Amino acid sequence: LIVIKLKSIHFFKLSNQIKIMIGIVGGVGPFAGVDLLKKVYENTRAGTDQDYTDVVLLSVSSSIGDRTEYLVGKIDTNPAFAIADVIEKMYSIGAKTVGIPCNTAHSPKIFSEIEKLLKMRKVQVKLLNMIGETIGYISQHFPHVNQIGILATTGTVLNRVYSNPLEKLGFNVIHPTKLMQENVIHPAIYDPVYGIKSTSKHIHEKAVKNLMKGMSYLRNQGAELVILGCTEIPLAIREKKVMEMHTVDPTTILARALIREDAPEKLNPVLP
Amino acid sequence: LIVIKLKSIHFFKLSNQIKIMIGIVGGVGPFAGVDLLKKVYENTRAGTDQDYTDVVLLSVSSSIGDRTEYLVGKIDTNPAFAIADVIEKMYSIGAKTVGIPCNTAHSPKIFSEIEKLLKMRKVQVKLLNMIGETIGYISQHFPHVNQIGILATTGTVLNRVYSNPLEKLGFNVIHPTKLMQENVIHPAIYDPVYGIKSTSKHIHEKAVKNLMKGMSYLRNQGAELVILGCTEIPLAIREKKVMEMHTVDPTTILARALIREDAPEKLNPVLP
Repeated sequence: LIVIKLKSIHFFKLSNQIKIMIGIVGGVGPFAGVDLLKKVYENTRAGTDQDYTDVVLLSVSSSIGDRTEYLVGKIDTNPAFAIADVIEKMYSIGAKTVGIPCNTAHSPKIFSEIEKLLKMRKVQVKLLNMIGETIGYISQHFPHVNQIGILATTGTVLNRVYSNPLEKLGFNVIHPTKLMQENVIHPAIYDPVYGIKSTSKHIHEKAVKNLMKGMSYLRNQGAELVILGCTEIPLAIREKKVMEMHTVDPTTILARALIREDAPEKLNPVLP
Repeated sequence: LIVIKLKSIHFFKLSNQIKIMIGIVGGVGPFAGVDLLKKVYENTRAGTDQDYTDVVLLSVSSSIGDRTEYLVGKIDTNPAFAIADVIEKMYSIGAKTVGIPCNTAHSPKIFSEIEKLLKMRKVQVKLLNMIGETIGYISQHFPHVNQIGILATTGTVLNRVYSNPLEKLGFNVIHPTKLMQENVIHPAIYDPVYGIKSTSKHIHEKAVKNLMKGMSYLRNQGAELVILGCTEIPLAIREKKVMEMHTVDPTTILARALIREDAPEKLNPVLP
């Protein structure tokens, strides 16, 4: 009991130093975590190191199963458990506003489970919903757009992560064909040789070519705007317009939402 | 006491989930932290998200005073205290091998204090020394080089962070003139308008121009190799050779050292 008491005093000492901060679930995927952290800083109004908002990023990707593999039934364990663990650990050192830079993890089958686990464990963070933020952004900034294309993982597409809420709002949603989704778009992210997840330093030109094939198809189907609906895709496509379609990057939108909730006065009014 | 006991049980529960991982002191500066995290991933042998090593990055830059300002006497509080707090917090959730992506923080006046504080607080991490790693790398990979140029903050230069250990090993160290250091090199990092710390999304061309002026001077003085001795500089200079001089990036070397200590089997043998 004495040992426990000492430990707990030590724990409280740590707690006292804790400041409220942004928490980023890293590792889903690793480079998407880097991208979100970078975009949080880029969207902050700051002149010196000391002006930036506080952030913790915890990346335990080795413990978090692939989200699409879970959704299509290839693995049994819901990645929600490991993601909730990560959030709980970040909460224990002061994270208060949390973002998950993985669109597929926002499938209700995973995301609702994370929310349930956090509630059960009394982890009192504000977990932002990247999908909701993105759809809010589109409604606000592109009120005249009707036709929205989606480039995403097969898990995100099959679980209608974007299409369900968009259709509810009256948007017309366009996906690549099933064949194109499986043989062109998903491999641009996952292929062990040329997929973005395995080659993030120098994006392989085949990954870009595949995504452009998807873009071209969506354009031909009438898309006016494309959601880069997997956080690896904005690592390869950085243009704000492609083939005359607007591109929307949910990672940037999540970054800005995190600052808005954590320290609104620091949100850079101009998109960088 | 009951409350304390419950809290401590909660703390132990968290501890049980803890895995050993890399810890990155973020926020010194913020974009240098992003850069180190990215370089850890880029130097990892991985095909899927699950292959990457676990990492925590904690950035509380608002609490860490500027390192150069402390070293030149403009602020009184040693940034070592805040940095030790960050490391202690990361240790509490499992960080075991730790890196600080700030050359100036490796000045003995700061770095030795951090080491002392960690020892006192029984924070049992392996804190890597970026300067030692960099000098080891140069000795190993450039055995025929004698003349080494340094581009760094004024704090790093005045405290001879690189020059003392390099001269002990028999290298000849070349710095910009005092005037150039103060009016050209340091502002390339710190100027509120064009300095790298305030414009990290699109590096200002004046910052690059200033650094190139420094490069040119070092070249004229006979430098064969230049240490990019402030972690903001590799954000602006990415070439492996500039004006026929080798450039050495301590952030990349620290990233590789972190993997070597944490999970050597995952270290990518090829520099990306």
